[in-house]
Amino acid sequence: MSLLVVGTVAFDAIETPFGKVDRITGGSGNYICHSAGNFTHDMQLVSVVGEDFSTDELKYLQSIGTDISGVQIKKGEKSFFWSGKYHMDMNRRDTLVTDLNVLATFDPVLPDNFKKPEFLILGNIDPALQIKVIEQLEERPKLVAIDTMNFWMDIAWDNLQKVLGMVDLLIVNDEEARQLSKEHSLVKAAEKIRALGPKFLIIKKGEHGALLFHGNRVFFAPALPLEDVFDPTGAGDTFAGGFMGYLAKTKDLSFENMKRGVIYGSALASFCVEKFGPERLKELSHKEIEERVQIFIEIVDFDIILD
Amino acid sequence: MSLLVVGTVAFDAIETPFGKVDRITGGSGNYICHSAGNFTHDMQLVSVVGEDFSTDELKYLQSIGTDISGVQIKKGEKSFFWSGKYHMDMNRRDTLVTDLNVLATFDPVLPDNFKKPEFLILGNIDPALQIKVIEQLEERPKLVAIDTMNFWMDIAWDNLQKVLGMVDLLIVNDEEARQLSKEHSLVKAAEKIRALGPKFLIIKKGEHGALLFHGNRVFFAPALPLEDVFDPTGAGDTFAGGFMGYLAKTKDLSFENMKRGVIYGSALASFCVEKFGPERLKELSHKEIEERVQIFIEIVDFDIILD
Repeated sequence: MSLLVVGTVAFDAIETPFGKVDRITGGSGNYICHSAGNFTHDMQLVSVVGEDFSTDELKYLQSIGTDISGVQIKKGEKSFFWSGKYHMDMNRRDTLVTDLNVLATFDPVLPDNFKKPEFLILGNIDPALQIKVIEQLEERPKLVAIDTMNFWMDIAWDNLQKVLGMVDLLIVNDEEARQLSKEHSLVKAAEKIRALGPKFLIIKKGEHGALLFHGNRVFFAPALPLEDVFDPTGAGDTFAGGFMGYLAKTKDLSFENMKRGVIYGSALASFCVEKFGPERLKELSHKEIEERVQIFIEIVDFDIILD
Repeated sequence: MSLLVVGTVAFDAIETPFGKVDRITGGSGNYICHSAGNFTHDMQLVSVVGEDFSTDELKYLQSIGTDISGVQIKKGEKSFFWSGKYHMDMNRRDTLVTDLNVLATFDPVLPDNFKKPEFLILGNIDPALQIKVIEQLEERPKLVAIDTMNFWMDIAWDNLQKVLGMVDLLIVNDEEARQLSKEHSLVKAAEKIRALGPKFLIIKKGEHGALLFHGNRVFFAPALPLEDVFDPTGAGDTFAGGFMGYLAKTKDLSFENMKRGVIYGSALASFCVEKFGPERLKELSHKEIEERVQIFIEIVDFDIILD
C-alpha cells in the first residue's frame, strides 16, 4: 500500500478579483488526491461527505487510483461547505461561511486494508481526529505528515502539541509557524517547532516560495512569479499532495529527494491557482509538469565559482 | 574610471527590537560605497554633508578607494538626519524625524574627473537631481542604475518618469514596484516599469529575496533565512552597492553575470543587517564574503533530472 490521505471533501464558493463560483468541489483530502495522483495511483482516502456530494467527483478520484472505501457517505445530510473571498493580495482571505454539516460529527475510521500505509498525510482537521487516525495504524508508515491551522492553535492547543509529538513532518504557512512558535524569525520558529516533535518542517510562504528544514539544513524553494493568481484555494493542499505523491513514487526520504518533492509540490501548486477549484489539476499531462519543473530549475539557476 | 556613486551621506538614529543608537553614520551614498568597496577601489562619491559630519567616516571611505572630492562640506550647516523605528516585522518602519538640513539645497556637481565613469549608481534622491547628474556626463556609462521611493512617486511623478527613460536599471522594493506600475502582480509590474525605460529591473523583497527581470527572463534570488535581523537600515543600499561593485569589478553585463551580482549584493546585505549602521561592512574579509555566497549556493541547490 502506498499513500493514505485523511482530509475533507467538500463544496466551496469562491470569489476572487477575477471571478466567482457558487459551488465547486474542494476540501483538503480532495485537493491532495488530485495532486498526488500525478505521481501514484495507489491512494486511500478517508473522509466524509453528505448525500448531496458529486458522484462524478468521487468517480474521478477512483479513476486516478484512489480507494474511496474510507469515504463515509451520510444519507440525508449535507457536505461540508466553505465560502471565501480573496482580494488583490491573495495571501489573505475573508471566510464568509463555514457550514460544518457532516464534518461536525466526523469520526475517521480506517478500513482494515488502510492500516499499513507506506505514507500518511493528515490534512487540516481537528488534532484529536489526527491522533485517532494515527492510533488505528498497525504499522508505522515511512513518513507521517500533517497540516494544521491557526484555528486549532486557538482552541485545541493540547491535542495539537500531542499530535506534533507523533509525526515526522509538519506543513504550515509562515503566519501559522509564527503563531505556533511565538517567534517572528522563521529560523527560530523552525527550531522551536521541531523541538515539539516533527524532524522535518515545511514553511509555505505563498508567492514567496517555501522553506524545508531538517537537522541543520535549510532549502529555499522559489515560487514562480505569476502574471495572475486566479484562485489560490487549495494551493497549499495541492503542494502537500504533490510533495507526498512524489515521495510515495520515489520512496526516498533523503534530504536531497525531499527537496525535489518540494519543487514538484510547488509546480503542482502553480497549476492549481490557474483556474477555480481543482479543475486545472484534472487535465495535467506528464509533459506539462516536467516543463513547469524546468522553469523552476531555470529561475533559481546561477553559476558562481568561488576562489 | 570605475564606479560613480551619487547619494546621501548622513546621520541616523535607529531603534529596533534589539537596541537603539542615537547618532550613527548612514545615507545611501555611504552604504553603497561601504558595500561596493569590497569589489572595487575606484569609486567617486558625489554628496553633501554639514560641518558636523565625521571626518573619520570620510577618511574611511577614502581608505577603501573612494575619491571624495565630489562631497561638498557646508560650513556652519548640519548634515542630513533621519530617525526611524522598526518593529518585529522589519519589512516596515516608522520614520520619526527627517531633518533635510544640507540636503534641502543639494546641487550635485560632478568634478571634471568624474564625468566619464564606467558605471553610475544614483541613490534615492530627488529625480530632478538624478537627471542633473546624468546631464553632466561626458560619456555614456556602461550601465546607469537608480534607486527611488514612494515619496518621489507622490510628489515628483513627471521627473521620475523622465529619469526612468534615461537609465538602464531600476532597483526598487516590491511595494514601490506596485505603486509605480499600479499593478499588484510583480510580473505585470515589471512589464509596465520596463516599458518606461529601464531594460533591467531588480525588485527587492526583503526577507523573501529579490527578482531580476530582463527581456523575457526572470531570476529569483533567495534571501538567507536569518535568526535575527538586528538592524535593516541600509540593507537595500548595501545590496545595490554590492551589485554595482561586482559589475564594476567584472565588467560583464550578461544576464548570467548580473545574476551573480544579485547574489553578491544579497550576501553583502545579509551582513549589513547583523549590526547597527554600516559597522559590519567595515570589517568584512574576502573569505567571509565567499563563505556567505557559498551558503546562498547551497540553500537553493537541488538536482532534478527530467525525462
